[in-house]
Amino acid sequence: MNSLLQPVFAFVAAGDSPAAHLPLALLLVFGTAKLLAEVFERFHQPGIIGEILAGVLLGPSVLHWVQPDQVMTALAEMGAMFLLFRVGLEVKASDLFRLGSTALAVAILGVVFPFLAGWAMFVQLGYGVPVSIFVGTAMVATSVGITARLLASKGLLQLRASQVILAAAVIDDVLGLLALAFVSSLGQGHVNIAGLTVAAVLASGFTFVIARFGAGAFGRIVPKVEAKLATKESQFNLALIILFALSLLAVYIGVAAIVGAFLAGLAFSETATRRVQDLAHGITELLVPFFLAHIGLQLNLADFANKRVLWLSIVLLILAVITKLFGCGLGAIRLGRTDALRIGLGMMPRGEVGMIVAQIGLQMGIIEQPVYATVVFMAVGTTMLAPPLLNWAFRGAVAATPAEDFSLG
Amino acid sequence: MNSLLQPVFAFVAAGDSPAAHLPLALLLVFGTAKLLAEVFERFHQPGIIGEILAGVLLGPSVLHWVQPDQVMTALAEMGAMFLLFRVGLEVKASDLFRLGSTALAVAILGVVFPFLAGWAMFVQLGYGVPVSIFVGTAMVATSVGITARLLASKGLLQLRASQVILAAAVIDDVLGLLALAFVSSLGQGHVNIAGLTVAAVLASGFTFVIARFGAGAFGRIVPKVEAKLATKESQFNLALIILFALSLLAVYIGVAAIVGAFLAGLAFSETATRRVQDLAHGITELLVPFFLAHIGLQLNLADFANKRVLWLSIVLLILAVITKLFGCGLGAIRLGRTDALRIGLGMMPRGEVGMIVAQIGLQMGIIEQPVYATVVFMAVGTTMLAPPLLNWAFRGAVAATPAEDFSLG
Repeated sequence: MNSLLQPVFAFVAAGDSPAAHLPLALLLVFGTAKLLAEVFERFHQPGIIGEILAGVLLGPSVLHWVQPDQVMTALAEMGAMFLLFRVGLEVKASDLFRLGSTALAVAILGVVFPFLAGWAMFVQLGYGVPVSIFVGTAMVATSVGITARLLASKGLLQLRASQVILAAAVIDDVLGLLALAFVSSLGQGHVNIAGLTVAAVLASGFTFVIARFGAGAFGRIVPKVEAKLATKESQFNLALIILFALSLLAVYIGVAAIVGAFLAGLAFSETATRRVQDLAHGITELLVPFFLAHIGLQLNLADFANKRVLWLSIVLLILAVITKLFGCGLGAIRLGRTDALRIGLGMMPRGEVGMIVAQIGLQMGIIEQPVYATVVFMAVGTTMLAPPLLNWAFRGAVAATPAEDFSLG
Repeated sequence: MNSLLQPVFAFVAAGDSPAAHLPLALLLVFGTAKLLAEVFERFHQPGIIGEILAGVLLGPSVLHWVQPDQVMTALAEMGAMFLLFRVGLEVKASDLFRLGSTALAVAILGVVFPFLAGWAMFVQLGYGVPVSIFVGTAMVATSVGITARLLASKGLLQLRASQVILAAAVIDDVLGLLALAFVSSLGQGHVNIAGLTVAAVLASGFTFVIARFGAGAFGRIVPKVEAKLATKESQFNLALIILFALSLLAVYIGVAAIVGAFLAGLAFSETATRRVQDLAHGITELLVPFFLAHIGLQLNLADFANKRVLWLSIVLLILAVITKLFGCGLGAIRLGRTDALRIGLGMMPRGEVGMIVAQIGLQMGIIEQPVYATVVFMAVGTTMLAPPLLNWAFRGAVAATPAEDFSLG
């Protein structure tokens, strides 16, 4: 395949002057993502898979045309931030709190089962305890972006199952942070109980306070500030500043930037005008393909030429699917089997969060390249399996609001 | 000042984990730019200056908090591309061609006068011919982004003077490319006449063909393609793909990516729906502050502690203002003195284009750091003087269309 494409590659390489680098990368990633999304939608499959596959195709696995360099990574992170911000804008915090106890059960069981499975599997295979705990931790964290993208594009964010997924994913992220802090301190040889307690209180407190009081406070403050500003599009600019500030605060406190972005959207959900939603939507449309393709860029298919790595990856992927489905489904069983299934599938994608845990383990020297590849396979695999399964589980569900262009595309 | 801010700096530095880096940079640049824009608009000054000053404040000159690294540079380049794309969307190619001969005279005289002035000044001061030619070339290229931003925000893009500025800036960029190709080959010891001719024909041909036939061709093709696509927001996605493709093609041919972006906007101007304009506007609002702040980030005020460098810079700045004003004004004199003045001032900002020429000279070892600093001072200075002068020259001009939120904010 590579030899056939050699002339194209030569042309691409020839034009690779510094000034050409950025527009070339933008064109390749955005163009290929949208092209493959179109192909998948033609066959009534989710376009998301096409956009992730664009990353696999352009990245180290096949063509080597795009590297996950600093710029691509930054665009991907911004894409995830704006995606979760947009999702937050369409959700009411009060709805999430109403479903709080179910979401908590979903999150906790969805953490415990995958962790135990990953840990037990690697202990059984004869790996050391630290490696096994790292793999278990990488199995834990749900990457809600994929599910949110799919549900938003179908206008299904207002459904009960969708809202449990969003609330549980936020709680899951706090739990994932604690698990990561725990294994990191384990890796350094001692467990800092006081530090872990502070992290737990800070992260839970930050999330709770913004989710509970953010919308009300912003509803009162933003219009007053806006009325005093002389610059144009002042509400939109305020929203972006708060988005960046809460994302940063979230990182300082220890949770992911996208949790802060989601909370910013939630806090703005009762204030944002249609115009602010439209402007944010334009940014999301540009950046989300970079977030999706970046997941595919992380994968290197060459790692799986080794049969043992391939089998390990497939088994870990199956465990990751079953344990999240079972754990989260059990947590939501009192909503009925249909919703339990939807919630279990919606919590399945590990996306970039699982890969970040694996990268930390790699950097700390605790896990090695083959185990890293296995975890990445599991993360990408769960992410690509989720959209068609969700499509099937949500078949027949009707959009609560006639969303049309108001929803995420 | 730095010592007073030490505690703040310590906090910022403490949080500088890799995950915090991106949201911190986004918050600092976007937040400071919008804050200073607000302050300037309160005093009835152009917000643009505040956004450039944000870069001076955050960059190596004062606080050292933000570096013009790969990610900031990429966001700045994308900001310039989307700004020119949006400007192109609001302009009709046929209007530009109607003013073609005036624009040509404006561009040519606006290149000749500044080049001769920069060259003569440095020869007089005893610098070698290559250095003097490089400085002259850096004086040539107009950076149309600043003027376009200002005119668009006032809804004045439809005025005759505005359209001459846009058309002349595109021609100016082609001439600037040829001048740069000429000095680059001079720097390598020989002038490649054949190569220069090919570059001239390619660049002029590319620009002419897209500007002349783009809008008509897209008006026929885009709706047909769009009708066949299954994905959402397909016209917007098509527009982005064409934007990236024409930007890349422009770089391959040798002109700036922003010329390709402007041509893409021009070609879409008769096809783009209101929705596509709104979505692109959201992206522009996010990214343009990075383009403006990045100009300020290039400046290092420490370079001007040397009195000789400071005086040289001030004289070069004055020459840059006068020669562009006089050259372009002369080219447009048959439109009357008011329009000649507006056009002369509108062509004044050198922005990032002058700095790119200086950087190439620095990398080739032809010019040294003090001369580089002088050229950067000239580029930033012309860019910051233009907005208030344009505000004054366009006072009383009435927006051709009641633009409101349709125009660039």
